[in-house]
Amino acid sequence: MLKLRRLGIDTYQEAVIYMNRNCHVCRSEGFAAQSRVSVMLGAQHIIATVHIVSPELLRDDEASLSEGAWRTLQAQEGSGIEVSHPDPLDSLRALRAKVYGQRVDLPAWREIIADVVAGHYSDLHLAALVTACAGDRLDLAETIGLTRAMLEAGERLDWNRPLVVDKHCVGGLPGNRTTPIVVAIVAAAGLTIPKTSSRAITSPAGTADTMEVLAPVDLSVDQMRRVVEQEGGCIVWGGNVRLSPADDLLIRVERPLDFDSEGQLVASVLSKKIAAGSTHILIDMPVGPTAKVRSADAAQVLGDRLESVATALGVHVSVYVSDGTQPVGRGMGPALEARDVLAVLRREQDAPPDLRERALALAAEVLEFSASIARGEGLPLARRILESGDAMRKFEAICQAQGGLREPPRAPLTRMVEAASAGECVAIDSRRIARIAKLAGAPVAPAAGVELHARLGQRFDKGAPLYTVHAQAPGELEYALNYATRQRDVIRLEDR
Amino acid sequence: MLKLRRLGIDTYQEAVIYMNRNCHVCRSEGFAAQSRVSVMLGAQHIIATVHIVSPELLRDDEASLSEGAWRTLQAQEGSGIEVSHPDPLDSLRALRAKVYGQRVDLPAWREIIADVVAGHYSDLHLAALVTACAGDRLDLAETIGLTRAMLEAGERLDWNRPLVVDKHCVGGLPGNRTTPIVVAIVAAAGLTIPKTSSRAITSPAGTADTMEVLAPVDLSVDQMRRVVEQEGGCIVWGGNVRLSPADDLLIRVERPLDFDSEGQLVASVLSKKIAAGSTHILIDMPVGPTAKVRSADAAQVLGDRLESVATALGVHVSVYVSDGTQPVGRGMGPALEARDVLAVLRREQDAPPDLRERALALAAEVLEFSASIARGEGLPLARRILESGDAMRKFEAICQAQGGLREPPRAPLTRMVEAASAGECVAIDSRRIARIAKLAGAPVAPAAGVELHARLGQRFDKGAPLYTVHAQAPGELEYALNYATRQRDVIRLEDR
Repeated sequence: MLKLRRLGIDTYQEAVIYMNRNCHVCRSEGFAAQSRVSVMLGAQHIIATVHIVSPELLRDDEASLSEGAWRTLQAQEGSGIEVSHPDPLDSLRALRAKVYGQRVDLPAWREIIADVVAGHYSDLHLAALVTACAGDRLDLAETIGLTRAMLEAGERLDWNRPLVVDKHCVGGLPGNRTTPIVVAIVAAAGLTIPKTSSRAITSPAGTADTMEVLAPVDLSVDQMRRVVEQEGGCIVWGGNVRLSPADDLLIRVERPLDFDSEGQLVASVLSKKIAAGSTHILIDMPVGPTAKVRSADAAQVLGDRLESVATALGVHVSVYVSDGTQPVGRGMGPALEARDVLAVLRREQDAPPDLRERALALAAEVLEFSASIARGEGLPLARRILESGDAMRKFEAICQAQGGLREPPRAPLTRMVEAASAGECVAIDSRRIARIAKLAGAPVAPAAGVELHARLGQRFDKGAPLYTVHAQAPGELEYALNYATRQRDVIRLEDR
Repeated sequence: MLKLRRLGIDTYQEAVIYMNRNCHVCRSEGFAAQSRVSVMLGAQHIIATVHIVSPELLRDDEASLSEGAWRTLQAQEGSGIEVSHPDPLDSLRALRAKVYGQRVDLPAWREIIADVVAGHYSDLHLAALVTACAGDRLDLAETIGLTRAMLEAGERLDWNRPLVVDKHCVGGLPGNRTTPIVVAIVAAAGLTIPKTSSRAITSPAGTADTMEVLAPVDLSVDQMRRVVEQEGGCIVWGGNVRLSPADDLLIRVERPLDFDSEGQLVASVLSKKIAAGSTHILIDMPVGPTAKVRSADAAQVLGDRLESVATALGVHVSVYVSDGTQPVGRGMGPALEARDVLAVLRREQDAPPDLRERALALAAEVLEFSASIARGEGLPLARRILESGDAMRKFEAICQAQGGLREPPRAPLTRMVEAASAGECVAIDSRRIARIAKLAGAPVAPAAGVELHARLGQRFDKGAPLYTVHAQAPGELEYALNYATRQRDVIRLEDR
């Protein structure tokens, strides 16, 4: 038994235990720096990585935990813990087989995902899993197995209604923050849309990051249920409700690795939507040279895979292929995107028209999942709900139910980037624009990002504003501008 | 500029920087827990991972480093460091391409390996690289490219002699510690054999671990050069001489992941041998159901790959396929294996005969690389050198030159495992025997391991000793025995 002392070291989600090198447990068990150990506190249990500290920081009968591990174990100053060798992980056999190119079946996926959710995998194992599934390395049967295992590993909501709708964007297109608008319209029309969203993985903002600057999103399952019962819809962070908790853990290593995986994308999207109780799901799939999906053929392949896996799991998926040749809306970054969303919902004169029309088109498709809304009636209905102010009222009610609507913050530092020469805008590199927004601090700094002034086909004079970088810290502003000035043709102008 | 204060936290080789959450650099640069940052101290520079500490541990103008990073930067209490955003890694494009199944060419390998050696890759990136190369995922051209890039990334020795020999075992067979005996015989015969060895990756002992209980092995390149100039041979740890330094960094993540990779194995072996200046290399390849190479076909494939890559890099490789159906020698673990080696060299009556004969056979093959030793003359010559005591004298001289011969330690705790019933020994599971030795503490506890009393074909009465577990700590002894008693047929006896 060792006594806990809080050193207050924050390692984000990586569980670390700090022990003195002379500690009797280290000596008798043979633990050294980077050993993986099992830590028990009462009935709670985690696997952590050992870091060894000098006797000035901890006595030899003491140990400490990283802040995340401290919270997970609900530790108190002076709590007694037991530290021991962890059981060998049987699921590593299946992971190893996948790494060597063999296929993983459902029982093996269940073993792997159970160990991931229990926190038994080190970051190295998580990275190996993500790498082994990258690209097109999962076939249809494996993707169905992974989706089912991820679904089973978390909670699953049941709304006791025949039609529960949802929408999801496969991403890769900055801005394009249609979700809050679509949810408001669809809920205002009386449908049920229990929307859970993710935080950014590799983009400047996820829907949850954007929504968080407008209202609390870290609701529990019970809180989420009350919001949806009351208002017909919600926009909450999926990580807190533990629908498909494996996904949240995988995202932590996917983010720095930045690999695409078709199978993992499908499993991630569908496991979350099905766990949220959805029966009909619309997938917005933007296609463009710098979007995630780059061609009509690729959209077809991914769309087919989504539909096949959905069918195998007993839900309906429709794919809406949209224009992904340029960002949608003006803002990229949580607060900047939230401003665009509010402008559309508030029917402001200078609200971005592309974002409004995209959101209406998607809302129309979702509305038409309802048997009582005929093909072709969705779009005029969506427009009526938006223009009457019903959508804004519903959005306010949802925000209120989630904890209260707030105004997005503004960044203290901005810098405009101007056209180096005159010309017509012929291409916008979504990836590099998104990178600039991330270097400026998004999404961790919520007011940071990029405000885009250019659209394809527009003419610019030399010196006209192309985009504005927003930042909360001088170092980040400089870092983003350094990158931006080194790039050619992030926004390409041609003299026509 | 932040001032360094030593907190003395040991994270093994993972570079960590500790900063206060209120530190002005964190605020202006937007650093948070798990951010990857560039740390400059004078002309030295590393990439480290941020852990955030409470104001009780560090003031907001202070930072600390993990012990490994502290040493790498040659830091002093109070040294001033600069912390900034690291440059984006161009080589990640090549890594990503490999992960998606594309081939990596030589320039891309050079980029990847340069970033690995410079410490720019996080553990996640290293794990992704190892995973993407696992199994048979590298083709011949890629393996040649990786070998060349790893070779170029470190120092390369030149002995200015036409014939420089070496031997290597592809491993997977516990015990089999022939290297010290082969080097002693070959050097005593007047050949040049500058042997660098690795520490254990997934086994209870590497040759460097075993040799270290007999003499210092962490020699510099200059020290190694002097030993070889003087004695014709050496047995030093490859990690310290920075021949193929990328390999040592990859091994750190390979060890916990425990993936095999044919391409990486070939690149690892050949880059080290060629960097050591060898022209002729003998590969000992044990084949058996629980060895690394499990069939004659697999040995053929791996042997061909080694020979092809060696030819492309201008050196000669011979493959010696040996019996891998059971461990060679009695000991598994650094000190236990060292005892076997000394017993053979000292011509003790109870020296393990299988180890002696295996070492003689390998030494014979190496001797015959010499133009002046005819085919068939190698074995009698090797035996004469061993039996005359010349090999032991040469071994003592080499140990002396490396810093002095010492006697291997004995473990304070031992426990015998007995035959549960009578029978003939028909199978020995090398992998599980090795696992018991590792659980007992090997190789970190040098005296720990397993002493095997059984050989294939031997008859045992009920209660006769099969093997003895050696440990330095009670926890480790218990852990190894717990595992051992849960296993069936680690040593299989059948009533015939």
